[in-house]
Amino acid sequence: MIIQSFIPPRRTLMGPGPSDISPQVLQALSRPTVGHLDPSFIGMMDEVKALLKYAFQTENDFTIPISAPGSAGMEACFVNLIEPGDKVIVCRNGVFGERMRENVIRAGGIAEVVDDIWGEPVSIEKVEQAIKQHPDIKILAFVHAETSTGVRSDAESLGKLAKQHGILTIVDTVTSLGGITLKVDEWQLDAVYSGSQKCLSCTPGLAPVTFSPDAIEKIKSRQSQVRSWFLDQSLVLGYWSGEGKRSYHHTAPVNSLYALHESLLLLKNEGLEHAWRRHQDMHNLLRDGLEKLGFEFVVKADARLPQLNTVYVPEGVDEAKVRSHLLEQYNLEIGGGLGEFSGKAWRIGLMGYGARRENVSLCLKALEESLR
Amino acid sequence: MIIQSFIPPRRTLMGPGPSDISPQVLQALSRPTVGHLDPSFIGMMDEVKALLKYAFQTENDFTIPISAPGSAGMEACFVNLIEPGDKVIVCRNGVFGERMRENVIRAGGIAEVVDDIWGEPVSIEKVEQAIKQHPDIKILAFVHAETSTGVRSDAESLGKLAKQHGILTIVDTVTSLGGITLKVDEWQLDAVYSGSQKCLSCTPGLAPVTFSPDAIEKIKSRQSQVRSWFLDQSLVLGYWSGEGKRSYHHTAPVNSLYALHESLLLLKNEGLEHAWRRHQDMHNLLRDGLEKLGFEFVVKADARLPQLNTVYVPEGVDEAKVRSHLLEQYNLEIGGGLGEFSGKAWRIGLMGYGARRENVSLCLKALEESLR
Repeated sequence: MIIQSFIPPRRTLMGPGPSDISPQVLQALSRPTVGHLDPSFIGMMDEVKALLKYAFQTENDFTIPISAPGSAGMEACFVNLIEPGDKVIVCRNGVFGERMRENVIRAGGIAEVVDDIWGEPVSIEKVEQAIKQHPDIKILAFVHAETSTGVRSDAESLGKLAKQHGILTIVDTVTSLGGITLKVDEWQLDAVYSGSQKCLSCTPGLAPVTFSPDAIEKIKSRQSQVRSWFLDQSLVLGYWSGEGKRSYHHTAPVNSLYALHESLLLLKNEGLEHAWRRHQDMHNLLRDGLEKLGFEFVVKADARLPQLNTVYVPEGVDEAKVRSHLLEQYNLEIGGGLGEFSGKAWRIGLMGYGARRENVSLCLKALEESLR
Repeated sequence: MIIQSFIPPRRTLMGPGPSDISPQVLQALSRPTVGHLDPSFIGMMDEVKALLKYAFQTENDFTIPISAPGSAGMEACFVNLIEPGDKVIVCRNGVFGERMRENVIRAGGIAEVVDDIWGEPVSIEKVEQAIKQHPDIKILAFVHAETSTGVRSDAESLGKLAKQHGILTIVDTVTSLGGITLKVDEWQLDAVYSGSQKCLSCTPGLAPVTFSPDAIEKIKSRQSQVRSWFLDQSLVLGYWSGEGKRSYHHTAPVNSLYALHESLLLLKNEGLEHAWRRHQDMHNLLRDGLEKLGFEFVVKADARLPQLNTVYVPEGVDEAKVRSHLLEQYNLEIGGGLGEFSGKAWRIGLMGYGARRENVSLCLKALEESLR
């Protein structure tokens, strides 16, 4: 096997993530590596925390990026908040709800599943009923923006409902952070995780998380040790904490954090509300074009994610073949369906830096030509 | 707080890692991101596997980089191989042996600790005795190259001893891979993990691992589920496996893998044996210079790691002040002591791309000037 340097093709990324990345972020990524205990780096870590607080709209002091992908961010929330025997309501309306259920079980918890049809938002009524049915529920877990279906659930109502009942929430905002309205403090969410490679338009590999004071209290009052050493946030906190000497936990992914810093700075400079509006505007353009081409959306209009457009594959079309054609002929990536929608739907992302007019036009024209 | 793009200083990294990184690797890092299921990316993944097999000197099919730092690589080995109640001998002669013990306990295992003095290699005799004392031992865990002390243990003898007794080994090669002789197959090691940021001279954030057929058999015959979803290698395997359709597990850290590919390619092109010799040669130069300056090594000559030189801080010297001076005046990073050696020793790394003549000279001259 003769191996040479890998020179990737230049794609336009309009799948479910990773999303298109700004040249500025790629440039930041390749700046010279410094030590993970270098004073200059520690200053940058504080800025990353401040920028993440802004993105999450929270004052939570514990707001950091986990040094691993979004699924490790998910696991960090579950293993730290759940103790063996804890009962957890898991809302399942797509792939990531099911993954939450698996996390509950592996963390030693008991999962009470509230199912909704794929492509529909989590039903507040069903959750309310489940809370009444199980007065010993400790945690409510749900996905804000289901990456497998493109549906938005009402995180505000779910957060406030849980808080009324003294229940902690674990919320998946992997695809929502930076793309649609998300207000961690106002909505009273407790343990919230995301990913770097969606609407933040950073490279994949980091998982921003934030823990509310209530979540921290639960972690501090644990009777049993967290099952994961790497994800034990009481240890991680010593490394990211702003006061005194940083205690070594693991070697931070220095360069990836340069990129996250830059992508969060781009978001800050644009302004969150402006970014949310841009995602909506680009979605409207894409939606109009797709409907003109005869596409049908999986999700009804009022629960649709602007940053992830899930449409049914037209009848008689070999969906994998079209996606390969788009990739090979246009260097354009769109996503296939996942789980129940595998082979039946396409997922077209307009995330972060990818939510640009030229991307919408390219996608519409390339689809039109490819489906002829 | 006014935040601007982070422009890091240009350091010479001679601590315990991250190590100096070749400009070629930094360049690879910033190439355009492609989707993690892109055919071009999947071809690159196969090359990364092949290059890692070469670096580890193994034919193990399951040889991949975990999408998280070295400590997650450690955890991946422990959570996959240990089932609740399994007895594990843990050799502890530094910080990372103790971390192994914590991993055993969190994975539900029982740790039988074999202690050796910090700075001395693991005693084969003590391990042999422990095996005789505990006939129900399932796993032997030890560190090949202790990053906290700079000592090398005899991984070959320990690997073969364990195999004779039908015991699996978990071996930490975070600091050894690429820097000193390591032959996974010949030494019959079973679950071996490393880090990207030491002698591979890649950016921090990835953990190469390799599992022998015996280790895979143990994973496949587990009675209980792996406690971590993210690190469950039976799931990860589906993503990295060379045959058929890749099943989605998590979004791979695409750009970090570009960098790993490039750094492994540099190692392959140099040749492993040449790289090992270069580390030894540079160590000899540095050792001669340090001894001329009056430094004393913590580790005796025959167990010393060429890539990590641990020396006692001269009496009466404010060690933190000197390190700050080196960083501020020379942009040179050396490492402080860890654990028992905190405040008492310095750790000078000559790892991967950092094992260069100009680094040795800079370090010696800067130390000489700073200690005057």
